[in-house]
Order: sequence, then structure tokens, then C-alpha cells
Amino acid sequence: MKKIAGGVTAANGFLANETQAGIKYVGRSDMALVYSIVPTVAAGTFTTNVVKAAPVRWDMKLLAEKQPIQAVVLNSGTANACTGEQGDINNQKMAEAVAEGLGIAATSVWTASTGVIGRQLPMDKVVAGAAALTENLEASLEAGNRAAKAIMTTDTVEKECAVQFEISGKTVTLGGMSKGSGMIHPNMATMLGVITTDAVISQAMLQKATSDAVKKSFNMISVDRDTSTNDSLMVMANGLAENAEINAEGADYDTFYEAMLYVLTFLAKKMAADGEGASKLIECKVINAASEEQAVTLSKSVITSNLTKAAVYGNDANWGRILCAMGYSGVQFDPDKIDLTIEGRETEEGPLTAGVSLKLVENGVGTDYSEEVATEILKSKIVTAIADMKCGTACATAWGCDLTHEYVNINADYRS
Amino acid sequence: MKKIAGGVTAANGFLANETQAGIKYVGRSDMALVYSIVPTVAAGTFTTNVVKAAPVRWDMKLLAEKQPIQAVVLNSGTANACTGEQGDINNQKMAEAVAEGLGIAATSVWTASTGVIGRQLPMDKVVAGAAALTENLEASLEAGNRAAKAIMTTDTVEKECAVQFEISGKTVTLGGMSKGSGMIHPNMATMLGVITTDAVISQAMLQKATSDAVKKSFNMISVDRDTSTNDSLMVMANGLAENAEINAEGADYDTFYEAMLYVLTFLAKKMAADGEGASKLIECKVINAASEEQAVTLSKSVITSNLTKAAVYGNDANWGRILCAMGYSGVQFDPDKIDLTIEGRETEEGPLTAGVSLKLVENGVGTDYSEEVATEILKSKIVTAIADMKCGTACATAWGCDLTHEYVNINADYRS
Repeated sequence: MKKIAGGVTAANGFLANETQAGIKYVGRSDMALVYSIVPTVAAGTFTTNVVKAAPVRWDMKLLAEKQPIQAVVLNSGTANACTGEQGDINNQKMAEAVAEGLGIAATSVWTASTGVIGRQLPMDKVVAGAAALTENLEASLEAGNRAAKAIMTTDTVEKECAVQFEISGKTVTLGGMSKGSGMIHPNMATMLGVITTDAVISQAMLQKATSDAVKKSFNMISVDRDTSTNDSLMVMANGLAENAEINAEGADYDTFYEAMLYVLTFLAKKMAADGEGASKLIECKVINAASEEQAVTLSKSVITSNLTKAAVYGNDANWGRILCAMGYSGVQFDPDKIDLTIEGRETEEGPLTAGVSLKLVENGVGTDYSEEVATEILKSKIVTAIADMKCGTACATAWGCDLTHEYVNINADYRS
Repeated sequence: MKKIAGGVTAANGFLANETQAGIKYVGRSDMALVYSIVPTVAAGTFTTNVVKAAPVRWDMKLLAEKQPIQAVVLNSGTANACTGEQGDINNQKMAEAVAEGLGIAATSVWTASTGVIGRQLPMDKVVAGAAALTENLEASLEAGNRAAKAIMTTDTVEKECAVQFEISGKTVTLGGMSKGSGMIHPNMATMLGVITTDAVISQAMLQKATSDAVKKSFNMISVDRDTSTNDSLMVMANGLAENAEINAEGADYDTFYEAMLYVLTFLAKKMAADGEGASKLIECKVINAASEEQAVTLSKSVITSNLTKAAVYGNDANWGRILCAMGYSGVQFDPDKIDLTIEGRETEEGPLTAGVSLKLVENGVGTDYSEEVATEILKSKIVTAIADMKCGTACATAWGCDLTHEYVNINADYRS
């Protein structure tokens, strides 16, 4: 498997487009379309929030009906959540407008909305925008990149990723885009994500790869512990790579799953690092835990702790907050066994800051570490905390970001 | 029942003192002592955090042994948590130093510490401070007030409350103090609280009144969703009011419970309003829920949502965040039934801001409310959100505070 340039248009037969519909923003795109030239096998995961946006309800229905999805239309600016029956009607109209332009059934069009909750979509603008999207669709990587930009809200960078791998002698491509910066605490899905692949794969295997990979990627990030009403991860496989169909577990499935996990993890970490107001990515690895479930709970408790997030922002090695966050997570463990180590890096593959892994805690008690080195490590763009529970062999990694003044700025004044 | 002036020294036979031991702060008190002239019946609730501070372990042991508690010694500046065996030894030394000065057994002395996690107590200062505390103990309300100030960390105001009521023709007094501003998300107790009463009551009934009242008061507040390692609520009843003993449920118990609930709720709300960096108190009332458990979960989910807290700080009636927070709480409900109303007040008993309760949402969909009035209401010192679930008769109220720039300031730079 190798990483390649591009996102949703990297795989064969996928086109994209975006437009300035004027839903909320002036001078920037706010609608995007991803289209497969042939019907696809589709899979997806959606928010577990009881309050589900109209597009989420629509998408889940089409997925349950195993509709041959061929397009995803997305808008930013308004979430179409808490909008009642009118919201459902508007959402369907958005799908119909795209379907008409593409000459396909509305039931082959997934929808996704992101933005303020509780406002109706401005339908004149949305319908005109949908029509514009279906003209001049392009297969270029640039078109995919522009689509990734059109779905941004408080995001500061677009999130794209693509990989290529071989299955039965055929080159298969899998790529995607996502957006999300606030209200990020995915549970079964992320804010918005679209994954495209030209693999030939059964629906069951596609859904399994999606669901399993989401658990280790999108479900392991949090910006603010707020699970959105609109979280959707939508996956389309159009089969144009002509590999032998993946319809059971085995080596081919493993190859595909590894690619899916790589792309979803890449996008998830990119979202955490671009969390609202974030100045750095916080990574928490829990190792040697009694079970994977415990490792997941412990690592998520650390990266969602406001006190820990604020301490990392302030470059303050206040490790007591990390042990405290593990302590109230609900997991039973022996605090007198824990070792805690921190590491810093400027880039994923870069060298360790100050050249060291710094052990702050040994057997539950603070070591005689250098505060100076700890502060230097915490100033890195990527800060990793490794908690060794010494009570088993399970591990998990969660990703979050620091809690900054800018987070408060953004969220105290989001609607205006 | 009537509210009276004072705190831990309001009830008969309770004395207090404080001193500048120099543990962390310069120029302010950092140790306090509360003492009953006779042994008491004691009750308490302590943190559920797996990582428990040394004083918490000590106090829970004495409570389990039903020791005749006669004093509580408290220090701020250092939490004596994550300090290993040395922490336990130091904690016991602190109790022994106080016991020696008072001429009582060390097993009659509860301890409580608050401050930075992971640092050992400076024992020379602590022992000297403990000795100083046992001299010049005073029964005055001022002495109680000075004790309440000595246990503050990032608190901006001391928290005290006292009430008087009649039982079997005798006047009974119950008062207390608490501290807590950050790492506040009590679970079975609060950061630190000491309640004193001269009531004659059995240990079983005292513990029941304490545990039941904590559930509706301290356990319903949150500043940052971080449950501390040191949460302790310690209650002492010395029997000097000479009322007929309360040893079973009934009218007398109800009177006592009502007083306990009043004092704990008063202190809890005061802690939420004084949350780190807080500019206002947020109150969430969930009414007509299917069960009390659901009402509790829903109301706590709202007051702990960072996005809701930041929106209230920004005076932004972004009600979608409140519905979203209820939606991800884990409670199943029909979002299309919810009504959401907001109210503002400058003081607890003051008039409604703008003279109105403003309905923002009816049956899950936004009403045509005035944004101007909503903003005015949100500028109040006390902001109340009332969610009517329309699916039962249960209700619950939770209290929190807004998420401000000052919260980030305080917690990005707490240790320095």
C-alpha cells in the first residue's frame, strides 16, 4: 500500500464539483457533490445522537434499503437538524434537484449538511446550487480538493487522503475527505466524511471494513466531547478496479481493511489536530491494559479532560490531571502501578523533541524529571502521553487537541 | 427552618481556626481546623475516582470504623494525591500533630487536602501549622469564615451557609463550608466540604440524610466534568442541641433532611457559580421526563457541554447545542416533543430579566423568538434552561457555569 495524492476523486470513475450557493458564506463555496459514473456498493456509519439531522435520517433509510448510491451532495452553513418535517421535505428536495441534474433516481443520492442547528435550508439557493453542481463535474484531483474545501465550517484546513494497493493483480485506489472541527466526539461516525474506492467488494464486507475501521479512528477522536447531530461517514465502492470481488474475510479483505484504516486514521487525526482553536494534537496511548475496552475508555478520558487539554495548551506538565482523568473514567485499575511517559514531535515522522521520551510517573508517583525538558516537549505540535497500566496486554490510542482561548472565541460567537 | 449567618461554627460546640503555614501561598491562610468540644456522630461521602488522595483513604477508613470524629484539619496548596506510601505517612502525621495539640486520638481527626496533585506535603510547615491551629480555637462566626477562606484555591469567594430549625421543641443548627472551583464534577461528594450540626441523630440517619442530599446537590453540579481525586464531604453531629434523637424516618428526619438539602444545595450552587473563570451560573431544569434517572442524565449533559457553556458565555441563544447535548446523553427520547424555555435573573430571588420566560423551541423546532430578548436574558448572572420532555412526570436540576477565556487562563498556567 502506498499513499498517493488526492481525495474523493483519486479512485477511478469518481467526479466532484463545488459551488457558491450563498447558503451562509459569501465569497466561498458551500455546496459539494461527489459522483460515481456507475452505481456503487455503499456502506456508512452515522451519529448515535438521538437528535438526528434530516440528512442523517435520509441516508440511514437509503442504506437500510441497500439503494445503489451514486452521488453524495453536501452543504455547509446550515445543519438541517431540529428542523421538523419541513427539514425532511427540504432535504429530499436537495436530493431530487441533484438527481434530476444527473439523470438518476433521488434514492441514489445521499445528502449531508453541516453548520448551525435549527435553521431551515434556503431552498431557492440550495436548488439552484444543486443544479449548478451537476454541471462541469470533474475527475481531477483539484476538483476533489475544491470539494473538500467547500464542506469546511470552522475547519482551517481541508482534510483529504488517498492510498493505492494491489488486489488480485489489479491496482485499487481508496480515498476520501472529511470535515469537522467543533462538536467533535464521534460515536460510530464523524462529522462528515466521504470515502470513495474503485474496489470490487460486497456490501457486507464494505460495511464491516467501514465499521471496524471507524472504531479505531473516528471514534477515537474528540475535540469537545460533543457528539454531533449530523455525524456521517459515507463510503462508495464502484468496482471499476476490476479486482476479484472481496466477499469474505481473508488476505484480500485484510489488504482492503488496512487501506481503509489508514485513510480513516489519517483523516481522523487531521480533524483532531484541526479542532476548533487547537494549537496542537494530543495523542494518548494506553498500553498493557486489562482489556481493549478499558484501554479505549482510559485513553478517551484523558484526551477529553478539559483540565488536561488546558494544561497541554499552557505547556504545563501537570501530570496529576492525566492520572485523575483515568481515575474517573469508570475503569478499575491499580493507580500505584502506572508509569506515564510523554513525547513530543513536530511532525508525525519527525524526531523526538529534545531527543527523549520523558518518564513523569513511575508506579503512580512522580519521578525527578526535568520540568524544563517537560515544557520543551509540551511545546511540540504533536504531544503524546503513554500510560503503561502494567495489568495486561491490550492497548488503544485516542487523539484530541488542546483547549485554547481561540476555542472559546470561536464558540462564544459561532452564529454571528 | 430559617437561614442564619455563619458556617461551620454556627452550631453549638463547634470551634474553628486557621493559620498561614506557608505550604504554597504567601500572605494568606492555607490550613484550617474545625473542632467539636465533644465527640460527634460522623457521616461522609468521598470521591469515586479510582485515584484517591491519601486523606480520602484515611477518612474513609475512620468512617468505616465508626470512629468518634472530633476534628477536621484541612490544607490548601497541595492535594497529597498520587504521592504513594510517603503521602499516607505524611497524612497520618498531620492528623497526629492536630490530635496531640487537642489531646484526642489521631483516629478522631479527619484530614482533607486540596491543591496540586503529585507533590508531597512540606511536613515541617504542616506540623508547625497543625500545632498553631490547635491554639486559640474560637466559636465565633468570624473564625468559621476565616476557615472557609483558608481552604480556597482558585475560588474567588468563600462558601458558607447555616440554617436553624426546631426538633422536639429544641432549636437545632446546621451549617457548613465548602471549597471548589476547578476539577469539579462531584460524584458522591464535592471537592471539600465540612458540615457541622448540634443535632442528636443516629449515624445511620445522618449518613442517609448526607448521601441522599448529596445526590440532589453536589452531584448535580459540574465545572469541567473532571471528578477530583480529593472530593470529600464530611459531616459531624455533636448532639448539643439535646433534641429527641432522630433514629428513624419520619417528621423529625424530614425536617433535618430538608435543612441538610438546603445547606448542601446552597453550597453546591455557590461552587458552580464560582467555577473557574465563570461569569455566570447555568441552571438546567429537565421536567416531565420519563424517570428521575433520565432527568438527571439529561440535565447534567446540558450543563457539561463545552459548546453550550461557551455559547452562554457569548450570550448566544444557540439552542441547537442544548438539544444536541441531550441527544448524545444516552437517554432515549422523542426530540420532536421537546419544548425549551430560557429565563434570566440577576439574583436567586430577583425578577425575570426582560420580565419574560422565553420559549426558544416548541415540539423540537425553533420558535419565532426575539434574538434581542434572548441575548438580554443570556446576559443575566443566573441563566436557566427549562427542557420539557413531555413524556412523564420526573424532573431534575443541574448547575454549571459558562466556559470563558479566564477558565483557559487559569488552567493553562495553574501550577506556576
